[in-house]
Amino acid sequence: MSLQQALFSPRSVAVVGQSDDAGKTAGRPLKFLRQLGYAGRVYPINPRRETVLGERAWPSLAALPEPPDHVYVVTPTTAAVEAVEECGRLGVKVVTVLADGFAEAGAAGLARETRLRDVCMRTGLRIVGPSSLGIVDLRSKAMLTANAAFDETDLPVGRIFAASHSGSLIGALLTRGKARGIGFAGLVSVGNEVDLSLGEICEATLDDPGIDGYMLFLETMRHAASLHRFALAAAERGKPVLAYKLGRSAAARELAVSHTGALAGEDDVADVFLAECGIARVDTLDGLIEGLPLLARVPLATGGARRRSVGVLTTTAGGATMVVDPLASRGVTIEPASAATLARLAGGGIEVKPARMVDLTVAGARYDTMKTTLDILLTAPEFDLVLAVVGSSARAQPEATVRPVIESAGAGKPLATFVVPDAPEALAALSRAGVPNFRTPEACADAIAAALSRRAPRPMVARSAPPPVMAAGRILDEFAAGALLDRLGIARAPSVALDAGIAAAPALPFAYPVAVKVLSADIAHKTDVGGVVLGVADGDGLLAAIRKIRTGVAERQPGARVGRVLVQPMVAGIGEALVGYRVDRDVGQLVMVAIGGVMTEIARDRSLRLAPVDGATAREMLGELRGLPLLAGYRGRPAGDLAALAQAIVALSRLADDPTVAEAEINPLIVRPAGEGVVAVDALVKLAGKP
Amino acid sequence: MSLQQALFSPRSVAVVGQSDDAGKTAGRPLKFLRQLGYAGRVYPINPRRETVLGERAWPSLAALPEPPDHVYVVTPTTAAVEAVEECGRLGVKVVTVLADGFAEAGAAGLARETRLRDVCMRTGLRIVGPSSLGIVDLRSKAMLTANAAFDETDLPVGRIFAASHSGSLIGALLTRGKARGIGFAGLVSVGNEVDLSLGEICEATLDDPGIDGYMLFLETMRHAASLHRFALAAAERGKPVLAYKLGRSAAARELAVSHTGALAGEDDVADVFLAECGIARVDTLDGLIEGLPLLARVPLATGGARRRSVGVLTTTAGGATMVVDPLASRGVTIEPASAATLARLAGGGIEVKPARMVDLTVAGARYDTMKTTLDILLTAPEFDLVLAVVGSSARAQPEATVRPVIESAGAGKPLATFVVPDAPEALAALSRAGVPNFRTPEACADAIAAALSRRAPRPMVARSAPPPVMAAGRILDEFAAGALLDRLGIARAPSVALDAGIAAAPALPFAYPVAVKVLSADIAHKTDVGGVVLGVADGDGLLAAIRKIRTGVAERQPGARVGRVLVQPMVAGIGEALVGYRVDRDVGQLVMVAIGGVMTEIARDRSLRLAPVDGATAREMLGELRGLPLLAGYRGRPAGDLAALAQAIVALSRLADDPTVAEAEINPLIVRPAGEGVVAVDALVKLAGKP
Repeated sequence: MSLQQALFSPRSVAVVGQSDDAGKTAGRPLKFLRQLGYAGRVYPINPRRETVLGERAWPSLAALPEPPDHVYVVTPTTAAVEAVEECGRLGVKVVTVLADGFAEAGAAGLARETRLRDVCMRTGLRIVGPSSLGIVDLRSKAMLTANAAFDETDLPVGRIFAASHSGSLIGALLTRGKARGIGFAGLVSVGNEVDLSLGEICEATLDDPGIDGYMLFLETMRHAASLHRFALAAAERGKPVLAYKLGRSAAARELAVSHTGALAGEDDVADVFLAECGIARVDTLDGLIEGLPLLARVPLATGGARRRSVGVLTTTAGGATMVVDPLASRGVTIEPASAATLARLAGGGIEVKPARMVDLTVAGARYDTMKTTLDILLTAPEFDLVLAVVGSSARAQPEATVRPVIESAGAGKPLATFVVPDAPEALAALSRAGVPNFRTPEACADAIAAALSRRAPRPMVARSAPPPVMAAGRILDEFAAGALLDRLGIARAPSVALDAGIAAAPALPFAYPVAVKVLSADIAHKTDVGGVVLGVADGDGLLAAIRKIRTGVAERQPGARVGRVLVQPMVAGIGEALVGYRVDRDVGQLVMVAIGGVMTEIARDRSLRLAPVDGATAREMLGELRGLPLLAGYRGRPAGDLAALAQAIVALSRLADDPTVAEAEINPLIVRPAGEGVVAVDALVKLAGKP
Repeated sequence: MSLQQALFSPRSVAVVGQSDDAGKTAGRPLKFLRQLGYAGRVYPINPRRETVLGERAWPSLAALPEPPDHVYVVTPTTAAVEAVEECGRLGVKVVTVLADGFAEAGAAGLARETRLRDVCMRTGLRIVGPSSLGIVDLRSKAMLTANAAFDETDLPVGRIFAASHSGSLIGALLTRGKARGIGFAGLVSVGNEVDLSLGEICEATLDDPGIDGYMLFLETMRHAASLHRFALAAAERGKPVLAYKLGRSAAARELAVSHTGALAGEDDVADVFLAECGIARVDTLDGLIEGLPLLARVPLATGGARRRSVGVLTTTAGGATMVVDPLASRGVTIEPASAATLARLAGGGIEVKPARMVDLTVAGARYDTMKTTLDILLTAPEFDLVLAVVGSSARAQPEATVRPVIESAGAGKPLATFVVPDAPEALAALSRAGVPNFRTPEACADAIAAALSRRAPRPMVARSAPPPVMAAGRILDEFAAGALLDRLGIARAPSVALDAGIAAAPALPFAYPVAVKVLSADIAHKTDVGGVVLGVADGDGLLAAIRKIRTGVAERQPGARVGRVLVQPMVAGIGEALVGYRVDRDVGQLVMVAIGGVMTEIARDRSLRLAPVDGATAREMLGELRGLPLLAGYRGRPAGDLAALAQAIVALSRLADDPTVAEAEINPLIVRPAGEGVVAVDALVKLAGKP
């Protein structure tokens, strides 16, 4: 029996801790299994009762006539651990665990997790959860869930698989989908992912011919590698993946930490990771629920930044602008109809003003007008996607304005529809016809932007396994860091080390003015301890600078060794950049670039990618920086050498092949005028610690 | 008969251009009037027919037995202008005009507008529109609208008045409201506001005892003064006003321009203006529709920045975090329960972990648990508002989790509810009980943030009428601008003017180094034409700088007069600010502050207020700048004199009393260390043009 079968179409299931009270959480699984008519064998287990909900209750897993394919454990924590151990002994294939009290519950909880993992290792048992509200297949009716929202008899079966870190959300997706005529093949609440991760569970469904696409509700980026593997395989099969991820705000990330026990990374890291996986990310709940039909119709872009231009057809300018506003804020271009398209429209008897939108308010909400206009726009080369916005007529006269949308939807470019009034019948008709439609302007814009941003996933590059970032690593001194830059081919300022005790200034191999910096493995942030003096003009200044550094460090970091100082020529340039590399605990190797100074520190302006990157990607990263003009000819200054800056990003990103380095930051990297390259002036390198 | 009566409860109405085809736009008004049972006299006017929709058709307004109180003109443009002129001749009180072809239609359209305004001036006729889809009172059943969404017989009557620049949106608000059990007293599509503005129409309803609050859908800030007047009067009466305004993105602002003929201002100007009016602004359509009950319950803050802390109670951490995420992104604080509150909960038998949210996932979705917890949180002093998030049980067991919310809602702090699954019955029960509830996490966060941000409106200050900003104004030369700063009490760098033709450097009243700048009324942006040389060290340098400026200007702005240059000492400081004043064509006098350099130009970091401002407001403005740390002790530098900077904002904002000045910008204003003040180094002042 495959993992997929045990998870989704088990021949037999047991519910450990099944209650006799169907109103209680622990009473629900048996009720739901019977209510929907699961056809396999069901073993309710309750050692304190003869029967539960009118059926024979078994005293224990060991007393069953067979080891069930899939066991759902709904007992409290301690008993749950024991039940899992028993599953292992009996050769059960999969167990799903409801109880909490694991990773989020301190040391005792972590110890319980270790016990669960140990069972998996020893016996081959696979675990969903703990803290899983269950796993459900609406085709096999294997309703192993305690989520109250499944207490219905008419759950629509569809072709979407939903996976969620939040247990409550599988109920929200199910019921909100149902209200929109959207059905699911299956849903899973993955809980703490102590064994099977969200990505692995989704991966197990990839060859299910009844599943066309995926909805993910993510709270953390834990187990990112398995998510990446799943996403690549889904893309190969043409199955789109749409994700909502909590954590845009720091407060939300903190909540995710406290209730799942996972550590939350920064949000732009999640953004970049999902993008590189070819997973579209939405910011609205409705965008997640309503977005898949559109995602399935927008072809995946490959290579280079994709065009993102939307043509808008509307019967109400104000209604359409509600969608345009958030779309434009997300960087999507609202493209006016070209002269050729306007000419085709005029040829079809449609007179519209040349403007950003094709506004039919004046032409009127008539079937022929809508149909002709749609057919022309959907085949116009200037658009990547067409948005049709229908006003009050969508409710009052759907024949005039919604029927043409349905009839034209397959005609060319992807089509998204927003209906301005409350118009449930129009929406249902659009959904039945498979035409992407949205209930709110915000979800519509969200899904369009997500679909147009999605690119083909980057193949998993052969990278060394990420080093164990948790262990404390050693910081390289400036000389060793310099040697690493040399090896990567990143130019750096020449430097000499001087004994901090010198009484006379020696001859230097470069001209004054120079910079003097403390050289000590004890000191990570030299500036903070007064360890840097810039613009030293001559030998006397050099000696004075050394004295100043020794005094400053002695005051601000007493005990730090100041045996030597580093002397470099002052390097002038157009501006400064910061290029960094690090191994993220969730998503692995990352490379980062930022413009130096306030744009980085205050405006939080940076661009990230999974490392390593090629030159095209590095240039794309630079293009994402709002502060790029500072290096590209700002206020009449000459332009900086952006080609060399991109090359430095590429070079530093190659650390992804070096498992000994955990983190490296070049700050500042002086950007000189075009053609004159970039020069690293300082670098901080942290080695991976011992596992 | 008052304006309000003529608009909303006319004793007689006429529809000019009423069609016999109820399916056509021009056929709708009579159909809707009859369908809902308007009790007044109705005169359909159609010179080409004996009857329309089975009723007698009159050939003209002049042929009627009386001048109707309110006329709706649904003919095309040319006939519409003639009909308005006839209304004026006959002494009609109010006419609403459907046709377009006015301000948005070029010179011919503007000429038509002038004709309409002329009728108003001569006869006292008041006009709604043109481009108005109508005006409706659901109590009197005066259904003067051509919006197809009103084609229903069971339109719920409520206590909200809705006003919209977009005609389609009144249909969207009506139908989306209906689907949520939200009814309206009346709705108006204000169109181009050639005579009656949105603010004036709302103002006419202020003493209507059947109206409790206002929903505004805004596309422009045109006629801001009347909106301000209305908002002040609404606040006095305790009637909340909630607004959605298009134009967050530049693309949306451009669309508003092209389809309404209005000029769109910058979005942060609209933000500030609405805030100073005490109008809450939402960013989501559902936030507009669902937000008023919450707004009505959150007390208006007066003075100072208000506390914005929300306590969260949830049966699902993931579901609640969907609201917390956008809330925190909008700057609302998610406040943990205090030790005292946790103790009260424990005393009530509720054990929750000390955390940002009170998470009842483990305690369970039970009536007693919910009720006790809610009653404690709603009386906890640390919260300004409590958010209750209910998971799947809201659908399956509303008695356990929704009933306590309804029963506790009146108990103390304002309460907002988000229900995670699709749960129409729970939502309807909450709405019936008047408990603010939301369908999407985004609308919930949007409305909470808007309600908590709203302050009591600032009384209209006695300001001079804004000068006519449209006329081209003269730019003051640097000396005259300096005199203005002196008059305002803003310190500036000393300066002397020198003839640009001097052959020898004169003695200066201050020490070198100095800055040399071209002094010419022909040149607005000195730097752009090479008109500034900084850091001039001595007399020879001064002569060289003058030569350099003359050559540069001759090259880049040939013909500009360079008779004199201005010489100033170089002024050093902690950093630079930009303080500006201008008369905005929509909202009037504004004062602005930004940190100089890239934070202004690239990060677009600025703070605005209506001018004049007091010291507390100026300090609040500084607090809104992300870049403030640059002036407050950044990277170990001393802190700048922020008190003096605030004082300069106050001083410049007093230009609001000077009708001769259209615009003034001090850039840079050097911020010196605390206690040493600020110094204006350059100022650009533009006088108001002749009307």
